[in-house]
Amino acid sequence: MAMSYLTSLTCSSCEREYPATIPQTVCQLCQAPLLANYALESARRHLNRDALSQKPHGMWRWAELLPVGDPKYIVSLGEGDTPLLHLPAIGREINLPKLYLKDESRNPTGTFKARGLAAAVSKANELGISKLIIPTAGNAGGALAAYAARAGLQACIVMPRDTPRANLAECRIAGAEVITVEGLISDAAQLASEKSRQEGWFDLSTFKEPYRVEGKKVMGYELAESFGWELPEVIIYPTGGGTGLVGMWKAFAELEALGWLEKTNLPRLVSVQATGCAPVVQAFSKGADRCEFWQDARTIASGLRVPKSYADRLILRCIRESQGIAIAVSDEEMLSAQRWLASREGVFAAPEGAATLAALSQLIRNGWITPDERVVLFNTGSGLKYI
Amino acid sequence: MAMSYLTSLTCSSCEREYPATIPQTVCQLCQAPLLANYALESARRHLNRDALSQKPHGMWRWAELLPVGDPKYIVSLGEGDTPLLHLPAIGREINLPKLYLKDESRNPTGTFKARGLAAAVSKANELGISKLIIPTAGNAGGALAAYAARAGLQACIVMPRDTPRANLAECRIAGAEVITVEGLISDAAQLASEKSRQEGWFDLSTFKEPYRVEGKKVMGYELAESFGWELPEVIIYPTGGGTGLVGMWKAFAELEALGWLEKTNLPRLVSVQATGCAPVVQAFSKGADRCEFWQDARTIASGLRVPKSYADRLILRCIRESQGIAIAVSDEEMLSAQRWLASREGVFAAPEGAATLAALSQLIRNGWITPDERVVLFNTGSGLKYI
Repeated sequence: MAMSYLTSLTCSSCEREYPATIPQTVCQLCQAPLLANYALESARRHLNRDALSQKPHGMWRWAELLPVGDPKYIVSLGEGDTPLLHLPAIGREINLPKLYLKDESRNPTGTFKARGLAAAVSKANELGISKLIIPTAGNAGGALAAYAARAGLQACIVMPRDTPRANLAECRIAGAEVITVEGLISDAAQLASEKSRQEGWFDLSTFKEPYRVEGKKVMGYELAESFGWELPEVIIYPTGGGTGLVGMWKAFAELEALGWLEKTNLPRLVSVQATGCAPVVQAFSKGADRCEFWQDARTIASGLRVPKSYADRLILRCIRESQGIAIAVSDEEMLSAQRWLASREGVFAAPEGAATLAALSQLIRNGWITPDERVVLFNTGSGLKYI
Repeated sequence: MAMSYLTSLTCSSCEREYPATIPQTVCQLCQAPLLANYALESARRHLNRDALSQKPHGMWRWAELLPVGDPKYIVSLGEGDTPLLHLPAIGREINLPKLYLKDESRNPTGTFKARGLAAAVSKANELGISKLIIPTAGNAGGALAAYAARAGLQACIVMPRDTPRANLAECRIAGAEVITVEGLISDAAQLASEKSRQEGWFDLSTFKEPYRVEGKKVMGYELAESFGWELPEVIIYPTGGGTGLVGMWKAFAELEALGWLEKTNLPRLVSVQATGCAPVVQAFSKGADRCEFWQDARTIASGLRVPKSYADRLILRCIRESQGIAIAVSDEEMLSAQRWLASREGVFAAPEGAATLAALSQLIRNGWITPDERVVLFNTGSGLKYI
């Protein structure tokens, strides 16, 4: 019955191990995020990457490398296997012929958040957890509401009052309890944490449970598969909570351990933030290994309005290990990149997604990216959710 | 180089044939819609359905059965291969265990319109047409704007002033010219037709060119493939212009001619309209073979606000040939079905999509659908585009 190679969880800081058979949150000793381990040696002997490629499409093709033991607990809306679009028109304009966009807006609920919540809700379902709470800048809340509804579980969504109205609408119609707070996602997180302690809700905050990142990592698997089991030279990714970057970096390590990569060159990871909220960029440029809380965070890209990620250390570690970089772009640059992408390539991206194109322009201008490199932008959501 | 089995076009009424090598609109003699013919006997000998299933996913897996001769003209944003979701929770409530939803909101631009416009823009691209105009209730305009941008072609979108603002936003950001008119899609169609004659825009109105329906028919291929090359007993589909119903009915005939179906039982087609605009329902119940223009059309489902489809005769013919039915549901029923679907199954459907669930309730109550049947609802778009 068990199909997953999941073995245990390990603290990302002190490396203490925890069993994955009961609900887990963060490390009890040092409060750092936990990450999932798989029996990759055994998987290497028994799994065949090309057989996985032939399975019906979607994220659960990779079920052996995901945390759900029994497939009957999987809660799915058909997430994953988003298209990798070549961007020839913009590529010509900036002399970068191998430019691609991974269009995550094509997931259920219109954003990449669906992947993480599909994994986390499925695992919660398997572990018998029935009340799920999440603080959110918007899209993670919409995704939780949808997957909880699909699973028949209770959901409570805590979001800033100025979250885009699409997020409010999608949470409410799915039957979730919605609480709006004055302030930012950090204020929402505080309230969620209190409600979690007092009322027994399980807290699905980014990196305060170990499974959302497992759903996100599949973006890394798909990328490798799309490039014929090689990896592109550069990945440009918008960074709020950081699950996507950390997840993909984990995926690449797993693919290496599985022996599935044709070449083991790893991509340089570019973390993109908004000039109005750039804690990772600040820490990266200072050489710090943790972020400082960003005061008075402001940006139209609601998903980037995260003053300090719980996984700041992991994010900074991934960027540095990859020989990557962290850069900030202004709201004006995002809006202009959004128009550029829509009018040249037909993709109406979220401002967070458009931010990656704005960042690319900077990196082309200063020579950090060269014309022969394969570059993948991530559009994390649909622009339709922000109008 | 040529990969398509396309041979010619035939008038759907007088059966006169037209070459597909030059731009075509409607039959020059009787003004009825033209439909595409393929060399299916030859395709039957050379094409292998299981080989098509193994190709990288998306609508263009079926390129041999689509109208573009040279693949270099294909304009794609990764449309097609939308998930077919089982709806176990609602199925239990209404005692219909084999209930499914084909979630077309997962296409580019968030609606099924992407399929038709991907096909039509690709063919226009191949035929050297550079200025495309469309009258629209909203979503077809958004799709044209995106595909025209992707292809580097000019687009002009004519829509009623009260079209949802998401549609306006997506057209404008993609760089299309947008004209809003007082009135309905029929008024928009008149203006588009004038501009087409006076300024040389090619008119992509529903069924006034032969290729949008070719993109839509792929929904029928995918359905057959998903059910192991059988077809479900019932398909419930919201009907505005009717391209989806007519396209799928054409697809089933083609699959039969190709010998790809394991069983040749065809589904009963249910056409769903709004009580505030139900010309097909009226004509169907009267036994008429054409629709009358519906006066004072009103419904929140903007895609169903079509007072008279250009393909009314074809739509009515498909419904009758399939031993189907046409029924109307109220806006209140749509909204209630929308909440039902979102809160039980996690899908936030467009009102047009939710209308199919409302119709299903009627058909279960009156016994037209029995508990053992496989029933597929079509969610044609994302609810996020209507808030």
